[in-house]
This record gives sequence, C-alpha cells and structure tokens, in this order.
Amino acid sequence: MKIRVIIQTLPYETVDATQALFAAAARSEVEISVVCLDKGPSSIESDYEEAMAVPDILTKVRTAEAEGVDAVIIDCMADPGLSPARELASIPVIGPAQAAMHLAAMLGHRFSVIAVLERDIPPIGRQARLYGLERELASVRLVNIPVLNLDNDCERLVGALAEQATRAVTADGAHVIVLGCTTMMGLARQVEMALAERGYVVPVIDPGVAAVKLAEGLVDMKLAHSKRTYLR
Amino acid sequence: MKIRVIIQTLPYETVDATQALFAAAARSEVEISVVCLDKGPSSIESDYEEAMAVPDILTKVRTAEAEGVDAVIIDCMADPGLSPARELASIPVIGPAQAAMHLAAMLGHRFSVIAVLERDIPPIGRQARLYGLERELASVRLVNIPVLNLDNDCERLVGALAEQATRAVTADGAHVIVLGCTTMMGLARQVEMALAERGYVVPVIDPGVAAVKLAEGLVDMKLAHSKRTYLR
Amino acid sequence: MKIRVIIQTLPYETVDATQALFAAAARSEVEISVVCLDKGPSSIESDYEEAMAVPDILTKVRTAEAEGVDAVIIDCMADPGLSPARELASIPVIGPAQAAMHLAAMLGHRFSVIAVLERDIPPIGRQARLYGLERELASVRLVNIPVLNLDNDCERLVGALAEQATRAVTADGAHVIVLGCTTMMGLARQVEMALAERGYVVPVIDPGVAAVKLAEGLVDMKLAHSKRTYLR
Amino acid sequence: MKIRVIIQTLPYETVDATQALFAAAARSEVEISVVCLDKGPSSIESDYEEAMAVPDILTKVRTAEAEGVDAVIIDCMADPGLSPARELASIPVIGPAQAAMHLAAMLGHRFSVIAVLERDIPPIGRQARLYGLERELASVRLVNIPVLNLDNDCERLVGALAEQATRAVTADGAHVIVLGCTTMMGLARQVEMALAERGYVVPVIDPGVAAVKLAEGLVDMKLAHSKRTYLR
Amino acid sequence: MKIRVIIQTLPYETVDATQALFAAAARSEVEISVVCLDKGPSSIESDYEEAMAVPDILTKVRTAEAEGVDAVIIDCMADPGLSPARELASIPVIGPAQAAMHLAAMLGHRFSVIAVLERDIPPIGRQARLYGLERELASVRLVNIPVLNLDNDCERLVGALAEQATRAVTADGAHVIVLGCTTMMGLARQVEMALAERGYVVPVIDPGVAAVKLAEGLVDMKLAHSKRTYLR
Amino acid sequence: MKIRVIIQTLPYETVDATQALFAAAARSEVEISVVCLDKGPSSIESDYEEAMAVPDILTKVRTAEAEGVDAVIIDCMADPGLSPARELASIPVIGPAQAAMHLAAMLGHRFSVIAVLERDIPPIGRQARLYGLERELASVRLVNIPVLNLDNDCERLVGALAEQATRAVTADGAHVIVLGCTTMMGLARQVEMALAERGYVVPVIDPGVAAVKLAEGLVDMKLAHSKRTYLR
Repeated sequence: MKIRVIIQTLPYETVDATQALFAAAARSEVEISVVCLDKGPSSIESDYEEAMAVPDILTKVRTAEAEGVDAVIIDCMADPGLSPARELASIPVIGPAQAAMHLAAMLGHRFSVIAVLERDIPPIGRQARLYGLERELASVRLVNIPVLNLDNDCERLVGALAEQATRAVTADGAHVIVLGCTTMMGLARQVEMALAERGYVVPVIDPGVAAVKLAEGLVDMKLAHSKRTYLR
Repeated sequence: MKIRVIIQTLPYETVDATQALFAAAARSEVEISVVCLDKGPSSIESDYEEAMAVPDILTKVRTAEAEGVDAVIIDCMADPGLSPARELASIPVIGPAQAAMHLAAMLGHRFSVIAVLERDIPPIGRQARLYGLERELASVRLVNIPVLNLDNDCERLVGALAEQATRAVTADGAHVIVLGCTTMMGLARQVEMALAERGYVVPVIDPGVAAVKLAEGLVDMKLAHSKRTYLR
Repeated sequence: MKIRVIIQTLPYETVDATQALFAAAARSEVEISVVCLDKGPSSIESDYEEAMAVPDILTKVRTAEAEGVDAVIIDCMADPGLSPARELASIPVIGPAQAAMHLAAMLGHRFSVIAVLERDIPPIGRQARLYGLERELASVRLVNIPVLNLDNDCERLVGALAEQATRAVTADGAHVIVLGCTTMMGLARQVEMALAERGYVVPVIDPGVAAVKLAEGLVDMKLAHSKRTYLR
Repeated sequence: MKIRVIIQTLPYETVDATQALFAAAARSEVEISVVCLDKGPSSIESDYEEAMAVPDILTKVRTAEAEGVDAVIIDCMADPGLSPARELASIPVIGPAQAAMHLAAMLGHRFSVIAVLERDIPPIGRQARLYGLERELASVRLVNIPVLNLDNDCERLVGALAEQATRAVTADGAHVIVLGCTTMMGLARQVEMALAERGYVVPVIDPGVAAVKLAEGLVDMKLAHSKRTYLR
Repeated sequence: MKIRVIIQTLPYETVDATQALFAAAARSEVEISVVCLDKGPSSIESDYEEAMAVPDILTKVRTAEAEGVDAVIIDCMADPGLSPARELASIPVIGPAQAAMHLAAMLGHRFSVIAVLERDIPPIGRQARLYGLERELASVRLVNIPVLNLDNDCERLVGALAEQATRAVTADGAHVIVLGCTTMMGLARQVEMALAERGYVVPVIDPGVAAVKLAEGLVDMKLAHSKRTYLR
Repeated sequence: MKIRVIIQTLPYETVDATQALFAAAARSEVEISVVCLDKGPSSIESDYEEAMAVPDILTKVRTAEAEGVDAVIIDCMADPGLSPARELASIPVIGPAQAAMHLAAMLGHRFSVIAVLERDIPPIGRQARLYGLERELASVRLVNIPVLNLDNDCERLVGALAEQATRAVTADGAHVIVLGCTTMMGLARQVEMALAERGYVVPVIDPGVAAVKLAEGLVDMKLAHSKRTYLR
C-alpha cells in the first residue's frame, strides 16, 4: 500500500523527518512518500496562507493519483483543500483534523484541541461545526508558541502541551485531547505520559497518526469519499 | 461610497452587464466598479473551481482596498475566499450567500435555495451549517441548467425558478426563496411575480442585491468584520 | 423613504432626541418620524411590561402603514410585538435585536450582548434561540444600571459597557459586541474606541442603527417579511 | 386544590362546557373554576389575536392568585402570555402546549401536532424551538377547519384528526400525537381509538388534560416556575 | 391506583423507608409497593452496575404488570432499563431522570443536576442528550460523597447540595436545580430553603417525586409510552 | 494482533462463518477469535433482547482482556453493552454502529442506514443522537426481512438492500450507505455494485468491517477509550 503525504514548503531535512514519522506510524508494508509544496507559504497559520497553498496541494493530489498511490494525506490541521481534492481524486484523501476529531468523539465524552496561537481558535471552531462535532468540542487551548519554532525546543513544547491539556481536563471537562498542529507529530505519547503523571489518564490523539490509520483502513476496505458529495 | 464587485473570468460585455445590474441595485450615490479575475475558471461550479479562483480573488481584494474602495463583494454564491479575504482587508468583504441566508432567516420561518445543478447541494448545505442556519434551510432545489447557459434563455430560467420555488413552498415548507446563483441576478422580482400569480406570496431574495445592501449598511455604520475572528 | 420609529411612553424631549439619533443613523434622504406609545409602561424591562406595551405598538404599526410610511422600527431590544405586527403590516417591520444579532453573526465568530440587568438574561437567551442563533451567542453580560438612569451619566455607562465588553472578549470568547438596550443608542463608536484603547479591536453593534440599515435595505429591495409566516 | 382555567371570550354555555371537561380531567378533590376574558378576540388564531388577548389574561392571572387558587391554566395552544404571567405570579402558571410537548417527548420517539389551519404551522414550530424540542417535532399537520366551527360537527372533526394523525404516523414518522387546539379537548381517546382501528397504536395527548395533570403535580410538589427566569 | 417502585438490593429497612418516602409523595389514594432487586449490585454508580441490574429490573417490571399495578417507577437516576422495560410493559414505566429533566426544562431557563461523584458526569450528559435537553443542562455539579454514605449524615449532605446548587446558580446560570441521585429523596425542600436563605429562590426538583407525579398523571390520563417506539 | 469478536447465541457453523468473514476483513497478521454468548437471545432485535444479552457480553469482554487479546468487537449494530464494557476494559472495545456512523460522516454529506424491521428505527435514531451525528443521518430505511432469515436468501437480500439504498439516495439525499445489521456482513461490495449499475456511485459501509479497521488502528496507535468517560 502506498500513501502520499503532502506537506508545506519546508527545507529538505523536514521531508526526511516527516517521512520517518509517518513511516513509524504506518504498518510495515505501507510505503510512505512525502512531497513538499513548490509554491505557497512555509506554514499555514491563517486562512490566507491556507488559500494560497491549496492550488499546489490540488496539483500534488492529482499527481499522486496519477502515480498510482492508494491514498493521500494533506498534512495540515486546517485540512486545506480537502473538499476540492476529493472532487479531483477517486482515491481516499484524508484531512488530519477530520480524522482526529471523529476518532476523539468515539473515544470519550468531549475533546479539547491544544492549538498553537489565538488565531487558530475560529478555524478549529468552524471545522468542528462543519464536521458536525461542535458539541463534542470542549475547548480550544493554546501553547502560544509560533509554528516555525515548534521544532526547536521539544521539551518545552511537551511541557506546554501537558499544561494546557491538564487545564482542558480539569477546567473544560475534556476527556480526550487532540494535538492541534501536525508539527506536533510524534509527541502524543509523551503528552499522554506527562498527563498520567499528573493523575489524568486520557487518550491523546496525534492527528497525523490518526490520518494514517484512517487511510490504511479505507484502502483495506476499498472505500473512498462519496462521489455524490464530491462530484468530479 | 465605492463598492468593488469581483467576478469570474468572463467576456467583457458581462462586466458591463454586471456593472449595470449592481448599479441598479445600489443607491444612486454609490459607485460600482466591477473587476474580472485574470486567472481561474470561467464559472465556479465546484469546490475545485472555487479553490483555483481564490488566490486571484485575494489579489483583487487587496487591490480594491489599496485603491480606496469602501467595500468588496465577491460575486459568487460559494462566497469563495471570504475568510482569507477578511484576514487581508479592513474594509467590509461581503459574500452574497451569507448576506442572503441571514436576510432570509429574518424574513420568515424557513427558506429554500433554488440552485443550478445537483453538485450545488452539498456546498449549500455546508454553508448553511457554517453560517449557523442549517435548521432554517428548508431545502435546496435545482433548475438543472448549466451556469454558462443561464443567460441564454431568460424566460425559461424564470419559469424553472418559479416551478422549483413553488415546490419548495408547497412540499418543503419554505416561506422565503433565495436565488442560488449570482448569474440569476435581476430575476428575483419576476420569480416573485410568477409565484404570486400561482397564489404564493413569498419574498424572493437576490443574493447579489442583498450583498449590495449589506455593504452599503456596513459602510454607513463604519463597521466591518471582527479582526479577532479574521486576524491579519 | 419614510421610516417610523415606535418608542415607549417617555417625555417629549426624548422623542426629539430619538428622532435626532435615528436621523443621524439614516441616509440623508430618509425621513424619520418617531411616535411614542400612548399606553403601557415607560420602559420595557420585563415580559410583563412588554406584553402590556404590545397592543398599543400594534395600533401604532397599523397607523404607520395607513399613513404611508415605508418601514417601521419597534425601538426596543425585546422586539416587542414583532410577530403580530408583521401579521398586520405588509411593509417591513424591524426588531432591533433580530437585526443586530444576525448582523453580529455575519461579522465574526461569536457575539456577546451587554445588557442592563439580570432579568434581561433569559429573554435575550430566548431571542437568540428563536432567531436560530443560540450557538453564536457567547454570553450576556450586564452593566447593572436601571434603564431609566441610563441617560443620566453617559460617561459612566460607556465605561461600564467597555468593561463588560472587555470581559466578554477575554473570558467568553466574544468576537463581536452587541449593545443590549436601545437606550444605549449612539454609544457604539465610543465603546468600540474604549475597547480598541485596551487592545481589543472588535465591532460594536448599535441595534437601533442596525435596524435602520435593515429597514433602508429592505425598502430599497422592495422586500418585506413573508406573508406565509406572518399571515394577516 | 383549586385550579383556575382562563379561556377566551366565548358565550357562557362554553364556560360550563369547559368547566365540565376540565373537571372530568381533574382529580375529584380539585375545584376547577373557569373565567372568560372580558376583552380580546373570541378565538386566538394568530399572533395578533394572541397579543390583544394577553393584557386581559394577565389581569385574570393576577386575580386568580389574589383569590387564592393554587394554579392557573391558560387554555390556549399558543400558551399566550405564559412568560409575563409567570413574572406576575408565584403560583404555577401552565401553558397547554408546553405541558403537552414535553409529555409527548417523554412517551415516544417523535411527535406530530394536528393543528387547525396553515397559519398555525409557524407558531407551533416557534414553540417547539423555544421549548427546546424542535428535533422531537416530526411534523405539524392540519385538519383545515376554522376553530369556531370545531364544536359544530364533532364526528367530522374526529375523522379529520384521525386521518391526519395516520399520515403523521405513516409518512412523518410520528410515534406520539398531540391535539393542536384546546377546542379539541375531550377528543383524544376517540382519535386514539380511531387510530387503533386502523392499526396504529400511538398515544394521543390532549393538551388541556396534560395541563391539568402538570398543575396538579406541581401543586402537590409545592413547586412553581423559577423566579430567576421569571423575575417579578 | 397502584404504583410499583423498583429499588436496588438494599437491606429491608430501606424498603420501608423508600415506601414511606414515596407514600408521602403520592396522593392519598395511591398504593405504593416497593420491591427490591434480588440480583445485581447494591447501588448503581456505573454503567456496569446498571447493565448488571437491568435483567432483574425487567423481571420485576413484568411481574408488576402481571400483578395488576398501574405504573412502575425504576427508582434510580440512571433510568436503568427504561427502554427495554417499556417494550415489555403496556403500563407506564417511569424513569426519574427523564421525568425530572423535562419538568426542570418547563420551569425555567436552564437547570443543573447536583450529582454524587465525577463518574456521574458522562452518563448525565448522555441522558440529557438522549432526552433532547442537552442545551437546557447548565452544568453537572458534585457533592463528592459515595452513594452508600449518603444516608448517614443528612445534614452534611443538605449542606453540600446547597453549596453546589448555589455555585450552579451563580457560576453556571442554572435557574432550576435537579437532585442527582434518588438516594437524596426527601431533601428537595430543605435544599430549596437553604438556597432561599442565601438569597437564591429557585425550584429544587426531587426526581423520585417527579416520577410519582408523572406516573399519577399518566394513569389518570390513561396514557402510556408509544408502542411504535417501544415495540413489544 | 489479536481481536476478539463477540456474537450472539447461534449454532456453531455460524461461529466459523463469522470467523471467516472477520478474518477476510482483517489484515493478514491479525488473529480473529469469535466467541458466542452462552446466555441471552439468539438475535438482538429489541432493547429487551439487548438488555438480556449484555451481562454475558460483559463476561466475555472481561475474559477477552484476561486472555490477552488486543481489542474486542461487540458484533451487533445495537452496540450492546458498549459503555459498561469500556468501564471494565482497558483494551479498545468497539461497537460496529459507532465505527460505521463516524466513518460515514467522514466520507460524505449525509448517510442512510438500511436496517431490517420497523422496530430498528427508534434505536438507530437514538444511537445517531447519542454519537452526536443526528443531523448527518438522512434516513433509516428497511428491507423488512427478519434477521434470522437474512442468511437464507442472499440474492434477495442484496436486491432489497440495493432497492432501499437507491431510495435513500434519490429520495432522502443520502450520499453514503451504512448496512444496518451485522448479519449483512460481507455484502457491502455487492450492494455498492448494484447501486453503481443503477447509476449511483456511493460508498456502502459494512459496520463489522469498519469495526475491524477501527480496532486495528487503535491497537496500532496504542489508544483506547478515555478512562475519564468510562471509569472502572
């Protein structure tokens, strides 16, 4: 099984790092290929950056299907271009936010998303509403560290995530935590352990990993999005 | 007051026709300028076409504000690029669907949208949900005439709109009708009269006109979208 | 264009003040006439006072249409008698709360209403639910100054409004503010500036002004409420 | 226990008939007194008629409490004046529609209201929304007989109710039926039997009777509406 | 009228105490019989304990109908086995939570449930959603005393209930209080008085008593749950 | 990876058939073991049968975890005992309905469930509401063949499923189909093809297969349900 992961325009070492993270999440027989956008912003932290990234995302989705991959993951919590990409493609196209939010809704009473900056709050609220899960969203909490710095100090980031997740559990009634940026990939278990040490045993969902599992499952089931919803 | 209307890439005579329609809808002191996208599809009938049109829409919004217009209308029922455009601009940016749906909700019990093709049903449903008006939407009904043909036979179009609006009223419980494509601009009164002749006195809303009135009102009030929702 | 504004039983100087405020909000060619109820309470701060005011409001709406005005505004945040008045009238009848809440929903993520007294909370909640905007209402906050005193100390009122609006933004997640009593008319810009000085740039909506703009727009569009919802 | 029933301005024999119907519904120790409005319309079939009836309803509620009755029923499916009456009174004030809709929601999956005329559809929809039961309302169906004629031909009315209730069950998925006008009081069992003969065993709720039972229960429990919601 | 109350496996003196409490709540002519489960846990504080109790509850419901009682109350806030018991029985089967929550929704703006332990929060949330009253539920607050200790120190329990009810009113916007465990039966008036002493006049609902009143009312009306929803 | 499937009390050949169907759905390295309830009804077609089956389901879940399996699937569309089983177990416990409904919500605009008998409509509606997906459920349609006969005439069943799925698509606006009984396992592709032959290209979800994929994904991710929602 071949899964294509589309990421934003970042230096090449991050392609390798992303490839390693997704390969670690995928089943052993899955071949992960990561492609980087040629155009568009280096990170997607606003609807404007998202809009500018979408045309090249669509090109990359089209190429992916032409190259015979089995599923595509758009590796960004904004699920940028998910609807138009599904119009173009017959193979499954997965958005990490949609995959993670529905998974969270299945695992417990309500979930919180731990996002990066204040500007993330409205779009995450819009996504939860669009995906029909507005009432399951307990809160959006913030680590307040810019995305491009998220890689630099992993320990500090885990600490901030655990701190905000704790508040989501104790003050907002969250029973499940969703990491709010795909740049946080690989940290879910550390945050889960930090929460458990504080006495809060709750699942922490890594949206990128949830996207991989949904992609694998859909390919296994020979299922994709409905072409009545996403007409070519 | 200066209002800029952004339309898709159509032949020049349509720019003039659009200008005339919007000028007729606007107050006499309002100066309407219509600009046409340089890139992107000739009509927006899918999420894919919408996504490809958005980057140039954003350029046109930026230019509009730089040129000192007071408000911008993105003349398409998909409200393409509304969120990112509002991030870029401090002046009001108006989507006809949002303006028309909220107006419809204020005028009666439930409303129906008479759209063009089957593919319009999911995005209109998504918009109603996103704008918080899902329960006010009685139905989406279709004239089943491709957008690019809508101009050709106006009488047939009015007939089809009146027919579907009648069914929306009698079968779906609609009390207000919203025209589902900005290409239908200028036909609301004719459809309203055709409905009245059949014994159904219901308001018919022309989204383009609703957008003009919202733009005029916002400029008068010196109000625009919230910069806490749409951070630059 | 002629717009009739119906206000409660107050001394005549307030009729003049109200006339001036509405005239300032309206376009220059609009003729504003203010009529005062002959019967009923001097202010509407409860459902009881509202109910007692409605019969004379309906008389005044009937008179307004007979006198040939183009639209009527019932100048009270309870939108008293809006439904029965619309049954009586074919011209647009506008409630400031409905106009302001829908406008707020269009301008940002969620809105708060800054009302007067604790007793306002349930009716504002009921209105938001009735207008289909319950999930857009972030909170109702209170200045805790009786309505009949609102005029006396304008500076204190603006301060209290700005204070509560700030809390609505920081603690309740409001992105748009709606003034919660038509007696606060004319203060929106001052509150907006006070908020901006504190670093919170959010639109502040004056329901009376929003009602004027909706009235003007409807008259321009030759639209009114649906007679299928509001049967005569 | 004393329960006061407030009815509209009808000839005196109807006071006796209403008294008999309510006494038959009440427990033997309950004393039913029926008072008729002195002012207002002879029936309430519109929001306008409702609004005009409310001031005298409020007078009658105030008198009832002063006379020492234990609970008041406003005998009209529009629940006219329910909120302001509860502000005035400390004793329970009951609206038949609220009592019947909540009872229906407890007894089965979804309910339909069989009302009189087309004009009843929007207010019943508004009530269901206001009472938080919009999603439980399967449909509003109509017998299309004017209220003032409802008394004249009881057999025809039962037939029409059974016919519409059958359609509500088979076409709209209703599992419980609510009679839609208090003038239909006393017919629930006949409609239920007519439905059972057609093979549809569903509860049929008589709102007047449901109001009596709620009143009795509240007086027994020494409970009334919350004075935080309905401030005097 | 005969009402059967089904309680969990507790020592016999509690059967007498429960009988006395229900008899005190019921009308004088009602005969209350209490039966205790032969199998299952001694209290229901989890979904597991509920699931294990249900089969014997169903046996007891079947026996009750065979013995000719008129209605059955399943005396537990989890309403355990309500749906399957209604499939088995033609007589009314009442769940205290359903009865109390709908009553609360009729008496005021929003209600809070004061429950026992943290584990009660998700099931009460699920019940409110299932009964269609999720938006009426202001909060679930906790006394944090294990159920089996609730009887031991009544004064402390009333104090804790009043304390949490006060917070529900002041911090969560509750206008009505629902006691969250049937073991608290008989305390509603004391909690109401303790609240009133603090200046908060709100109704406090005892679910067991609400269940009795609903049972009496349904038997009086000769109504039961819909056999289209609960097919035998 | 070891997955335990719990089925109802059926003859042994069905255990083998079920084992084969689940093994075919699972990845090659997954070991599927099927256990049959020792007590309870032979099929679950009512809440009563569900309630009677749950205690033994819980025993089987406890045994499964003790025997070291990695996840448990309760193979019934009623998801019987899902909540209490999750309280008992730390390993993932999966309900096919929950897995299938969330998957359906991710793949298209709205979904319909094609169930067996009329009695399935209320519980499926309750599940959709409980899982927060009520608005995504376009309809429940019925093949009207008793569960125990579903195996006997596969061709007729596929025909009936395709017929009802077609109506769900054309009349109810469904864009995704969910098979409504786990006894239909293995037929999704045939129904999908029958639909495609009629010109309707929509995904058809087999809940048993969706449950397997969710189980595999959760085990891969080392995630399970939240112990704050499902306290042991």
